[in-house]
Amino acid sequence: METRDILQRLKNNEISIEEAESYFRKKPFEELGDYAKIDTHREIRSGFPEVVYCSNKADEHLIQIYQHLYDQYGEVFGTRATPHQYEIVKEVIPEISYDKISRILKYEKADKKRIGKIAVCTAGTADIPVAEEAASTAEYMGANVERIFDVGVCGIHRLLSKLDTIQSANCIVAVAGMEGALASVIGGLVDKPIIAVPTSVGYGASLNGISALLTMINSCANGIAVVNIDNGYGAGYIASQINRMGAK
Amino acid sequence: METRDILQRLKNNEISIEEAESYFRKKPFEELGDYAKIDTHREIRSGFPEVVYCSNKADEHLIQIYQHLYDQYGEVFGTRATPHQYEIVKEVIPEISYDKISRILKYEKADKKRIGKIAVCTAGTADIPVAEEAASTAEYMGANVERIFDVGVCGIHRLLSKLDTIQSANCIVAVAGMEGALASVIGGLVDKPIIAVPTSVGYGASLNGISALLTMINSCANGIAVVNIDNGYGAGYIASQINRMGAK
Amino acid sequence: METRDILQRLKNNEISIEEAESYFRKKPFEELGDYAKIDTHREIRSGFPEVVYCSNKADEHLIQIYQHLYDQYGEVFGTRATPHQYEIVKEVIPEISYDKISRILKYEKADKKRIGKIAVCTAGTADIPVAEEAASTAEYMGANVERIFDVGVCGIHRLLSKLDTIQSANCIVAVAGMEGALASVIGGLVDKPIIAVPTSVGYGASLNGISALLTMINSCANGIAVVNIDNGYGAGYIASQINRMGAK
Amino acid sequence: METRDILQRLKNNEISIEEAESYFRKKPFEELGDYAKIDTHREIRSGFPEVVYCSNKADEHLIQIYQHLYDQYGEVFGTRATPHQYEIVKEVIPEISYDKISRILKYEKADKKRIGKIAVCTAGTADIPVAEEAASTAEYMGANVERIFDVGVCGIHRLLSKLDTIQSANCIVAVAGMEGALASVIGGLVDKPIIAVPTSVGYGASLNGISALLTMINSCANGIAVVNIDNGYGAGYIASQINRMGAK
Amino acid sequence: METRDILQRLKNNEISIEEAESYFRKKPFEELGDYAKIDTHREIRSGFPEVVYCSNKADEHLIQIYQHLYDQYGEVFGTRATPHQYEIVKEVIPEISYDKISRILKYEKADKKRIGKIAVCTAGTADIPVAEEAASTAEYMGANVERIFDVGVCGIHRLLSKLDTIQSANCIVAVAGMEGALASVIGGLVDKPIIAVPTSVGYGASLNGISALLTMINSCANGIAVVNIDNGYGAGYIASQINRMGAK
Amino acid sequence: METRDILQRLKNNEISIEEAESYFRKKPFEELGDYAKIDTHREIRSGFPEVVYCSNKADEHLIQIYQHLYDQYGEVFGTRATPHQYEIVKEVIPEISYDKISRILKYEKADKKRIGKIAVCTAGTADIPVAEEAASTAEYMGANVERIFDVGVCGIHRLLSKLDTIQSANCIVAVAGMEGALASVIGGLVDKPIIAVPTSVGYGASLNGISALLTMINSCANGIAVVNIDNGYGAGYIASQINRMGAK
Amino acid sequence: METRDILQRLKNNEISIEEAESYFRKKPFEELGDYAKIDTHREIRSGFPEVVYCSNKADEHLIQIYQHLYDQYGEVFGTRATPHQYEIVKEVIPEISYDKISRILKYEKADKKRIGKIAVCTAGTADIPVAEEAASTAEYMGANVERIFDVGVCGIHRLLSKLDTIQSANCIVAVAGMEGALASVIGGLVDKPIIAVPTSVGYGASLNGISALLTMINSCANGIAVVNIDNGYGAGYIASQINRMGAK
Amino acid sequence: METRDILQRLKNNEISIEEAESYFRKKPFEELGDYAKIDTHREIRSGFPEVVYCSNKADEHLIQIYQHLYDQYGEVFGTRATPHQYEIVKEVIPEISYDKISRILKYEKADKKRIGKIAVCTAGTADIPVAEEAASTAEYMGANVERIFDVGVCGIHRLLSKLDTIQSANCIVAVAGMEGALASVIGGLVDKPIIAVPTSVGYGASLNGISALLTMINSCANGIAVVNIDNGYGAGYIASQINRMGAK
Repeated sequence: METRDILQRLKNNEISIEEAESYFRKKPFEELGDYAKIDTHREIRSGFPEVVYCSNKADEHLIQIYQHLYDQYGEVFGTRATPHQYEIVKEVIPEISYDKISRILKYEKADKKRIGKIAVCTAGTADIPVAEEAASTAEYMGANVERIFDVGVCGIHRLLSKLDTIQSANCIVAVAGMEGALASVIGGLVDKPIIAVPTSVGYGASLNGISALLTMINSCANGIAVVNIDNGYGAGYIASQINRMGAK
Repeated sequence: METRDILQRLKNNEISIEEAESYFRKKPFEELGDYAKIDTHREIRSGFPEVVYCSNKADEHLIQIYQHLYDQYGEVFGTRATPHQYEIVKEVIPEISYDKISRILKYEKADKKRIGKIAVCTAGTADIPVAEEAASTAEYMGANVERIFDVGVCGIHRLLSKLDTIQSANCIVAVAGMEGALASVIGGLVDKPIIAVPTSVGYGASLNGISALLTMINSCANGIAVVNIDNGYGAGYIASQINRMGAK
Repeated sequence: METRDILQRLKNNEISIEEAESYFRKKPFEELGDYAKIDTHREIRSGFPEVVYCSNKADEHLIQIYQHLYDQYGEVFGTRATPHQYEIVKEVIPEISYDKISRILKYEKADKKRIGKIAVCTAGTADIPVAEEAASTAEYMGANVERIFDVGVCGIHRLLSKLDTIQSANCIVAVAGMEGALASVIGGLVDKPIIAVPTSVGYGASLNGISALLTMINSCANGIAVVNIDNGYGAGYIASQINRMGAK
Repeated sequence: METRDILQRLKNNEISIEEAESYFRKKPFEELGDYAKIDTHREIRSGFPEVVYCSNKADEHLIQIYQHLYDQYGEVFGTRATPHQYEIVKEVIPEISYDKISRILKYEKADKKRIGKIAVCTAGTADIPVAEEAASTAEYMGANVERIFDVGVCGIHRLLSKLDTIQSANCIVAVAGMEGALASVIGGLVDKPIIAVPTSVGYGASLNGISALLTMINSCANGIAVVNIDNGYGAGYIASQINRMGAK
Repeated sequence: METRDILQRLKNNEISIEEAESYFRKKPFEELGDYAKIDTHREIRSGFPEVVYCSNKADEHLIQIYQHLYDQYGEVFGTRATPHQYEIVKEVIPEISYDKISRILKYEKADKKRIGKIAVCTAGTADIPVAEEAASTAEYMGANVERIFDVGVCGIHRLLSKLDTIQSANCIVAVAGMEGALASVIGGLVDKPIIAVPTSVGYGASLNGISALLTMINSCANGIAVVNIDNGYGAGYIASQINRMGAK
Repeated sequence: METRDILQRLKNNEISIEEAESYFRKKPFEELGDYAKIDTHREIRSGFPEVVYCSNKADEHLIQIYQHLYDQYGEVFGTRATPHQYEIVKEVIPEISYDKISRILKYEKADKKRIGKIAVCTAGTADIPVAEEAASTAEYMGANVERIFDVGVCGIHRLLSKLDTIQSANCIVAVAGMEGALASVIGGLVDKPIIAVPTSVGYGASLNGISALLTMINSCANGIAVVNIDNGYGAGYIASQINRMGAK
Repeated sequence: METRDILQRLKNNEISIEEAESYFRKKPFEELGDYAKIDTHREIRSGFPEVVYCSNKADEHLIQIYQHLYDQYGEVFGTRATPHQYEIVKEVIPEISYDKISRILKYEKADKKRIGKIAVCTAGTADIPVAEEAASTAEYMGANVERIFDVGVCGIHRLLSKLDTIQSANCIVAVAGMEGALASVIGGLVDKPIIAVPTSVGYGASLNGISALLTMINSCANGIAVVNIDNGYGAGYIASQINRMGAK
Repeated sequence: METRDILQRLKNNEISIEEAESYFRKKPFEELGDYAKIDTHREIRSGFPEVVYCSNKADEHLIQIYQHLYDQYGEVFGTRATPHQYEIVKEVIPEISYDKISRILKYEKADKKRIGKIAVCTAGTADIPVAEEAASTAEYMGANVERIFDVGVCGIHRLLSKLDTIQSANCIVAVAGMEGALASVIGGLVDKPIIAVPTSVGYGASLNGISALLTMINSCANGIAVVNIDNGYGAGYIASQINRMGAK
């Protein structure tokens, strides 16, 4: 313990008051340097393990990160991985698994305890990759996840027939492209927070997801907040934070 | 009959072939001059009476148009009128009536026969002015109109409880601002054409109706086409054209 | 009949009032589950057969859907198919045909009865793929279709020379990219509903079709409503709904 | 209890099985009609009282709504009220109070029990009206609220000096206009969900809040979701839902 | 003649080579200072008189400019003037005249000779103020102007009936708001340059003229170039330049 | 001569007045059909030969068009051709030539007489492909063209040193990407019409040419009108129309 | 000195090592609280006095801030003040002065020493209010300022005639609306940093300054960086920072 | 010296006054032609060597430019080079070096003296290519550069721990994509000018860097100006200009 050491040495007359004072006069920001080191214990602070954003990472860099996290935590989880990245990581972590749909590259502990429930809903089948990213993230963060796919608003009975399941979740992730109306309809049917994820599914005036994003941001329903287009990971993360509260 | 007259005079040798030929050599576009005149009989051609767009019309101009149409057809109908315009037109057509909500300034024949049915639905109460413009237009064009207001998607039961009425119409006008999801939900529940009207209701990222417009254009449901933001008149017009077919 | 059964058993004292009440207290949404099942008979409800959106469908998935629909209805129709998708579907449905221009992959019953008339017009030759998607969809939905291509507004005589045909249709589909003015000009010449389809044809400030979309949404002509950029299918569908009414 | 009544009358032989059956055969959507009525008990369902969006409400309409909610619940809460609306409501509910900053018009029960904690932070003083709307909403929904204003990122020490308070909340509402970076910085310092509210504060390229909205949607920090520009109410609502979970 | 003077004095040994050299070593930009002075003779250089953009000019400043130009040229011409500006200028130039529609405040010499012909066309009556600004500007610049108003594309016969006049002009100014298709249609009918002026006429998705601007920029017709939204002056100016060539 | 024939036969009593009248009563639009035929003589009408837009043309289609125009006029000119298109056209027209920079594929008569002068200026070297499209088009249309490249505004002396040449042209084509300021600076230095061509040169906030387009549309200089992004052909065309007037 | 005091007391055995340690173990963020206090000495840290953004400040709040700063520094400076704000501040600081053009409300010490030179240039006269905000800010920050107004690029000689003055400045502020090309042209003529300020001057496609902002951001010239639309203050501030370096 | 030569020959009577006068009468713009030539001495004028923008340069052209600059200055520096360009330039300049990350292709003199200090900071690792372009440019321009990467605002302690270094620079370059908040946070911690560089890092609503650009332009901090998206070179250039002043 450095602080105690300084104080002891002062008391022992091994250093002068001036020397001790100089040590403690360090600007607050230097102390923050220590705080930064603590950040390697990020899992302890946030309660969630670190996640790797694989997109555009250099091969050697990616291998190092996977190796490091795997060694430290016994598990590792990355989003937006390519098949090529799967190949190279598999060489160092043979038990790694890759899901082509969600593009998640992970090794997850077998005995992970999951709590609460998050419902991950999609409007169409084309939204499933983003939804799977959200669902897998939430599961890695320790949540039970119910997948309810292809319940878009232009066939409202499909959604209504799943209402019990949706209503019983602590948090709903609503994933939709094109007109993105799913979140609003769910918003009128549940009393739990909804995290809306616009997707880039669609063409023409969907503007690569901007249209769905606007729809969700303008929702007339209560209890809806929105993350970036195709950001399944971000939705899974905040939904896990909320679920953790509800599950307590 | 000018054409016949020329031909008669040719046959009577009152004019030469060259003179007649010169008359008929007129470019096609001159003939269109006659066609243009026919246009004053627009009602006969389209089957619908002419409608006045009152916005920004000069006072004298507006009075003349109202007087002229009223004299010719015994009725007159204008959209986006101001209270001031009501005052000035009332001086020349005392029986004119004005509706503050829809901003429609009209005198309509009492005995107008109406056919078929158009359902005009709104997501919220704030969309009613635009919906009333659509409904009144359709009524003036000779359609029966069912008004179904405040059935937005964030309270889906309200919409579902009106489904019978909506399904029995020849055409549905779906009026919504904010996230504009109403048309998509109705689209999944009916088998008739839906004319979607985005409104400028909302704030922030509603972008004065652009967000609702994009939602409607991107609808995943079948049988939806869209008109301009707040264009109740346009929706009422095309819905009347469709209804007229269905009612035959 | 389950309801009658419950009532009979109550009357027979085989169940208590409380048991009966519990049965009927089921939330309305459970009943909707039954309604959802009816949806497998979608053709009966809308009067139109189901259509496959082939874009980005997984190979196995696409084959299954085609096989299933073909078995059930004796015909099958899909849009935005790739040559590769044609190859794989042909293996299971050898009589399937593929049109490179419209990207439609279909097998259509030979003896289909068609009614009414839809005029599908394009501004230029580059708009033909979208127009063919609309035309083929409408034909599959049972409409007669008249194709009137390359009649853009910068050569107005080409359009005018086809006016008889256009005026005799129950509904016009106007397909145009670049400045997208075709719908407005037709709108002034006919008294039938026009479904306008902006296309992504153009470059620079055409903004991939947004410019044409805006033009059509802002049209000064009556009787025009708009679908998404390049959405030939959507235009063909709603035009068929309208034509069906006019043809009755 | 209508259902029990019918069953009882059947059992009493006062009605026939057919009559009872007819009652229960009502389509699911009719049942939903009942559900809609239940909606007046919205407070019971969502656990939160109804809130009035005063903007653009007609005077008579507003008075009726306030009177009705006040009579039913003994309290009433509205957002975006004008001083004029305060005047007219005060005539029927003299104990109503109005806050010029947040534009909230309410009468709240004195003995309301509050749970948990929500931290409502703003980047600048100009964001306070939106933040107050969020804070007052959350308080009305039963949450304790800590207000931490003017802690924008261009004076990061102000934010850091309040870190203890922020970290101890169940949910943080981050309100910011201009560049809207507040949410990202907080996101790196807490492990609780953050609801980000862009405001229309700023000028020029702030695009009336669109710039701040984009910043927040693109945040690199975990645990952030976004509501509409200036939507303090929406943020307060979803934050209350989250806080309720954390406070259990 | 300063240059000759220096050279003479050098030859006369009145100055040294070094002194002469220093004179001629002046940076080219100093010479440009002289060029700048010539600019006060702008009329001579461009062949067109100077025009005042009245919008937001301070009262005293405007009066000075009008007085100065009137004194120098015997005529003066300003655009976007307010009635108030008319009042204050009239006090110093009693013969000034003001046109409420075009907002032009001018005194023009009675005996101005005009050459050639420019056709100024509008789609609707609401576009007339912008068209009048163009027409009056062109007349002030010395062109004959033919006004052809309300010939929008949704009533194509109106335009066709004026074709002779339009085709006989050296340059056409096509003024249109909303969907702005007028220029394209004219472009297919004439072989002269067309200056297209989008106007802010319209609402909703017209985006204050951006929609019409995009339409015109994307025109499929040959011989069209575009000026800023509502920029009648700019169109009148360049049309006059073109007309002057054609009239030679 | 069909008209004369009818008249003669009437005069000869071979047909009745009614028969003649029926012939002449044909709707104006039928006459327009004839007008359409005249369009194959487009060169005669506009004074300019037809030009092929090669982009995305099917191989067989392109070959046919080139063959047809070459046979009819002895020359042929196309824009936006690919090297592949050059290869296939060369097989049928061996003397065809292709310019990689401008992507123009043409055979031009050797003895073409050129008139007047057009100055085609670019801001940078990256704008040259678009400028060459403009210049070659103008030359094909019969104009003399002066190429003045790489005279962008951030090195103003380069532009000023070419001023004589620019000022002596009948029309200036100003081609620029990035900030697109070239047209404005030239606009202050010449008294001839300037056709401004924004290019998609640039990156980031250049928005593929939208930024340059906006700059040019907003120019404070007189005598500037704008064509679409990268539309060298369009600029060359209208510049040729203007030059033709100036050269008379 | 608190730290020394603690250490002294430890050495004096007045407190234990544990007590001292507890004092120094305070989280770094508490130390930052002290740092925050230092911020009231902001002038000392940045070398520049604090400036008040008056826009939308409540009356009482504004008076307090002005009083406080005036008392503390003997001078006070605010931007975007209204005439009303001038009136109310004048009551407490009678020597305050207000400039209607720049909307600056200030009292500045008479004997302020100014260093270096900043050239503030505008394209037009309508840009002067923003330029004056920049110039007055820079003067308040201690810079000499040269005002060079109305030297827009469409009259390039005006700019060139001022080149000596511009080239002799340490930093140039280039203020322009409409097409905003001024910064690029200056960028090619000087070797000093240029701070470009887009203004909202213009109409139509100027998009309230977005067009000028894009122009400046895309500048092809070296040494240009951009601030927000109409942000004269921001430009004056950073220009003063740069000038201070150059003047050392 | 040409001017002196003319003068001498005049004095020697070898040429007449008229001949001399004719020489000096050349329009100022001709003089500018000389000025243009001086531009090959650009390094002398701006104090910075010329830099090659390699993107899309033709191979032969690029080789020539590199050869020429290398011969003239003994060093050469280009941005946005491809590996292919490296290969071809290496053939003529074997000592050329290429950095894959920054895409810089250069040969730099070994003994270059560097002055002052610029801090180049990035929010994330994905921003490093742009930052390296800035840093290498600044080093080539003669500045010392401190690289401080991956100090984004969602882990504020990382930034704070580097504060000493950042505060000691003459100018800070802040490079960030996604929400782009880095510049604002640094802006509150330093008193030196900050050049903000938005990057296209991100996805969805990052709009290829537009979102980060807007954030930076709207920054609430003082002393920030912005360059184009991904424009590391531009930032390095202006930062070098500023650093040069501070280092004097």
